[in-house]
Amino acid sequence: MIKVNENYFNLEESYLFSTIAKKVNEYQIKNPNKKVIKLGIGDVTLPLIPEVVKAMKKAIEEMGQKETFRGYGPEQGYDFLREKIAKYDYQDKGIDIDLDEIFVSDGAKCDTGNITEIFSKNNKVAITDPVYPVYLDTNIMCGRINKEKPVVYLPCTKENNFMPELPKEHVDIIYLCSPNNPTGATMTKGELKKWVEYAKNNKSIILYDAAYERFIQDQNTVHSIFEIEGAKETAIEFKSYSKTAGFTGVRCGYVVIPKEVKAYKENGEEVEVRKMWNRRQCTKFNGTPYITQRGAEAIYTERGRKEIDKNIEYYRENAKIIKEGLEEAGFNVYGGINSPYIWLEVPNGKSSWEFFDELLENVNIVGTPGVGFGKCGEGFFRLTAFGDRENTIEAIDRIKKYYKK
Amino acid sequence: MIKVNENYFNLEESYLFSTIAKKVNEYQIKNPNKKVIKLGIGDVTLPLIPEVVKAMKKAIEEMGQKETFRGYGPEQGYDFLREKIAKYDYQDKGIDIDLDEIFVSDGAKCDTGNITEIFSKNNKVAITDPVYPVYLDTNIMCGRINKEKPVVYLPCTKENNFMPELPKEHVDIIYLCSPNNPTGATMTKGELKKWVEYAKNNKSIILYDAAYERFIQDQNTVHSIFEIEGAKETAIEFKSYSKTAGFTGVRCGYVVIPKEVKAYKENGEEVEVRKMWNRRQCTKFNGTPYITQRGAEAIYTERGRKEIDKNIEYYRENAKIIKEGLEEAGFNVYGGINSPYIWLEVPNGKSSWEFFDELLENVNIVGTPGVGFGKCGEGFFRLTAFGDRENTIEAIDRIKKYYKK
Repeated sequence: MIKVNENYFNLEESYLFSTIAKKVNEYQIKNPNKKVIKLGIGDVTLPLIPEVVKAMKKAIEEMGQKETFRGYGPEQGYDFLREKIAKYDYQDKGIDIDLDEIFVSDGAKCDTGNITEIFSKNNKVAITDPVYPVYLDTNIMCGRINKEKPVVYLPCTKENNFMPELPKEHVDIIYLCSPNNPTGATMTKGELKKWVEYAKNNKSIILYDAAYERFIQDQNTVHSIFEIEGAKETAIEFKSYSKTAGFTGVRCGYVVIPKEVKAYKENGEEVEVRKMWNRRQCTKFNGTPYITQRGAEAIYTERGRKEIDKNIEYYRENAKIIKEGLEEAGFNVYGGINSPYIWLEVPNGKSSWEFFDELLENVNIVGTPGVGFGKCGEGFFRLTAFGDRENTIEAIDRIKKYYKK
Repeated sequence: MIKVNENYFNLEESYLFSTIAKKVNEYQIKNPNKKVIKLGIGDVTLPLIPEVVKAMKKAIEEMGQKETFRGYGPEQGYDFLREKIAKYDYQDKGIDIDLDEIFVSDGAKCDTGNITEIFSKNNKVAITDPVYPVYLDTNIMCGRINKEKPVVYLPCTKENNFMPELPKEHVDIIYLCSPNNPTGATMTKGELKKWVEYAKNNKSIILYDAAYERFIQDQNTVHSIFEIEGAKETAIEFKSYSKTAGFTGVRCGYVVIPKEVKAYKENGEEVEVRKMWNRRQCTKFNGTPYITQRGAEAIYTERGRKEIDKNIEYYRENAKIIKEGLEEAGFNVYGGINSPYIWLEVPNGKSSWEFFDELLENVNIVGTPGVGFGKCGEGFFRLTAFGDRENTIEAIDRIKKYYKK
């Protein structure tokens, strides 16, 4: 009799975005004339930059000609892209990363989910709260986290400035996301150093999600965990072109696993983690599309970088409009400076969901209830800067009108 | 201390294609003037069809304009593609498949690898021998197959016409690949019916890899396992555009899981497998690129289907040239009619690898030693029809000259 993986039944049904969609839908049916503005889902609205469009069209032309057609590509990604990543994202910033430490993929969601496969089920996992739900769910699905082996939550609250404290107990795998989704908080060099030291002392591994790195403006905030001394022995870094270059529908990202990162067999024998991931990718993945990789490569041309900067600036300005507007309206607001996410404290002791309803019904704006990202997100609410400018301004005007005393 | 997934160390190091590459490389260095023809790896050589190129270019244009830009798409694939799949690949052939039973992906390698995640580690697995190594390896990597829980091999030999016999013991998961890689054998309706009955009686699930379906010419060979009565309760079907449409570097395929396919909890409770896969994909996958899906859609237009047929015909003609040439040269040859793979018996009791060396050194042709696909592949050798015509003809001429008595 074929048996299912029962770990799946330890997952909480993820009603967050479906509940939001349902509520919005019901509201619109009852109020067909109201213009609802959506600042909920973290999806981009600006189109692909011209440099990427040009490169991808050229790649398709190549694929249509026998002489330049390309079949199976390397599972780790083409060198033309890995060279750009190594140079622009690392070497130019003084970080020494080799091509064979870079694995190109179809996005950080797959990577952060799949990476769990190469580690033992007996590792203890620490996850910040609130955070991107995929970290927790993928560990539950494979049986690493359950009632007997609970996750160690690292609360990120107003009181600790949304900066997680080191766990009191030993953990083996630590998920850090900076700039953070959803709080928008970023870890300073000093903060991150503590974690790298912890990982080194405990022979733990930090899974560092830097998907929003491009939004960082502060000087003392790192763009890569490998800026921290010792991190090359203790960290795996995940990056994504989704928010940087509007690739949410194009699908491309990459993982960096330095050769120095080691894990252990039960008998204490040391194993190179990079080789484990390489084996995983060669067996269960067949490479990122050639056309996609040519698109990603184009982000690194001089023109490409300028075009990307312009888009990031656009979203940053949106974030500023939201942040300042909300502050003017009397809200306590976090994030929004080094991050496209604005994390606001729900006023008057209401719950995240109560505030969701209030915002939808009274000002026709959709956001995301903080509790959807974890228990510590209760009493908070996420708005995103990825909307278009006109809608963002209108949304904030409405909020100011409604809430400003 | 961070621990690795030690199941990985139960994998045999896969030296097959790296050993081939090394041997070819060494030969070429010693013999720089020899023209080596490669009929080894199963990668296509014809470019993308014009209809696909056109559609993908249009999709990129859309992605470059704000009005038509698309961000995150549905994890299950866009309906525009699922509708074409449902109609052309199933409903037009009298098979009733709904859109929500179709999951678009980045290829059959990922799908056949990832599907193992939704089932219990305690299921007993049966795999034909020889076969595509990913089935075995992915089950070893997750700990379903090891010394204590060995795989049940289903030998496919000359004696049984490369048709596996039903297992003598109970198995829960059965991998079938038809047309088969590497033997080129296809299961007739009658053969497949036995397997569907077995699965029904044993509450097993058949994982049916139909990646080479488009090459079928025989009338009594099924294009989909769902042509068999009862298969909708017992089978999951994997399809790929890699060989059909030259998508090896574009990456697109799909899985079909009918609603009727059930698996069980330890307590006997029935679970819909489709829902398990949906949860897996929604958590660990972020959808196939929009541009890729528009490319796949174009395969189904009237013009697209004609262009694809022409390419398939080209590879079929290659297969015919290889098959007939080898027969003329005195070889025992299998496959090559409903499949792009030619499976030849190594003459004079030599091993697969001895024949590999002989072919490389004496006629400068590269193929794949059968033993690389499993123990029962020893004494056999795979050639592929995916090369270009001129090289294929030259290769076979050389073989005829060398081997013909």
